[in-house]
Amino acid sequence: MTKPKQAQPTSKERIIKAAAELFADRGYHAVGMTDLQQAVNLGRGSLYHHISSKEELLFDIVKLYIFELAEEAEVARSIKDPIKRLQALGSGLVEKITSHQAELTVCFREVQSLTEDRHKEVLGLHTKYEKVWKETYLEGAKSGVFREYDGIVLKGLLGMFYYSYLWIKPGTKLDTKTIADHLNDLSFRMLKK
Amino acid sequence: MTKPKQAQPTSKERIIKAAAELFADRGYHAVGMTDLQQAVNLGRGSLYHHISSKEELLFDIVKLYIFELAEEAEVARSIKDPIKRLQALGSGLVEKITSHQAELTVCFREVQSLTEDRHKEVLGLHTKYEKVWKETYLEGAKSGVFREYDGIVLKGLLGMFYYSYLWIKPGTKLDTKTIADHLNDLSFRMLKK
Repeated sequence: MTKPKQAQPTSKERIIKAAAELFADRGYHAVGMTDLQQAVNLGRGSLYHHISSKEELLFDIVKLYIFELAEEAEVARSIKDPIKRLQALGSGLVEKITSHQAELTVCFREVQSLTEDRHKEVLGLHTKYEKVWKETYLEGAKSGVFREYDGIVLKGLLGMFYYSYLWIKPGTKLDTKTIADHLNDLSFRMLKK
Repeated sequence: MTKPKQAQPTSKERIIKAAAELFADRGYHAVGMTDLQQAVNLGRGSLYHHISSKEELLFDIVKLYIFELAEEAEVARSIKDPIKRLQALGSGLVEKITSHQAELTVCFREVQSLTEDRHKEVLGLHTKYEKVWKETYLEGAKSGVFREYDGIVLKGLLGMFYYSYLWIKPGTKLDTKTIADHLNDLSFRMLKK
């Protein structure tokens, strides 16, 4: 049996990937469309055939990853045990950060560069994502495995995970599972009774 | 007895404050010198009399606050008890974030926009600051009040504190002490045996 060929990325996917790397490396505002043209080796006309503006690209990157995180969290909701669900949420976030570091750096650092409706849409997805964490904490508190719900504790816990995009370096010797296990242990310490 | 008059800010201090607010609000790269001129109500010539470039301003802001944090951490080193020292470091950081939110937002978010020597100098101060946290953890581990030293745990703990610049909103109803007490409780949970 022959292995199915991996699909070639489309031009749009290639542009999004290159833009994420440039934005992560130099900052969204510092990158011009000419930089992007050079990175993907396309002329101005061809580039604008695929995208309409730099902000649309930023929106595509941020939305895609926040959407994926929100979708994965939705799947994790089927895990009955709040402790195991908390771990699944933590592992999912660490996995996303280690496997798509440029994209997640852009999500965390550049979201405020989106304007009006786009900003609102992304914040909506983000709120939906965090709701699953909150619900997990609340259920665990109700069943007695976690301490009483406290908003600052949830903020601290999420901040610990989110901030890791800054210290998990590409090519780190630490594997994803080790980082996730450590942070999951810390999140359990933060919530346990 | 009359209360001593509070010193008027110098023009340079006024420019730094305005720049921090603009950079925090719109992002360093999105702010032009014309925006800054308008914010401080100075002509181009007068503005350039006080500063030499936008990057120098960014450097002044970031250096000042990283320097102050490093200095305060140095003072905290005189606290013998590692648990109390850990709390002093946590409270100091939260206090700095709540009292100078624009400046700390710029420190956390825009440091990568500094070039070469400036970037190196700031990273040096930052490393010096984090060393005091690490030393505290190591001493507590040695004396048996904290668990064995683990680099990921320290990263998680610092990330929890650092990330709070994003969720502590100006004009929040939560007072500084409440936030610091909560995060200090979490950091102790993370490190205790």
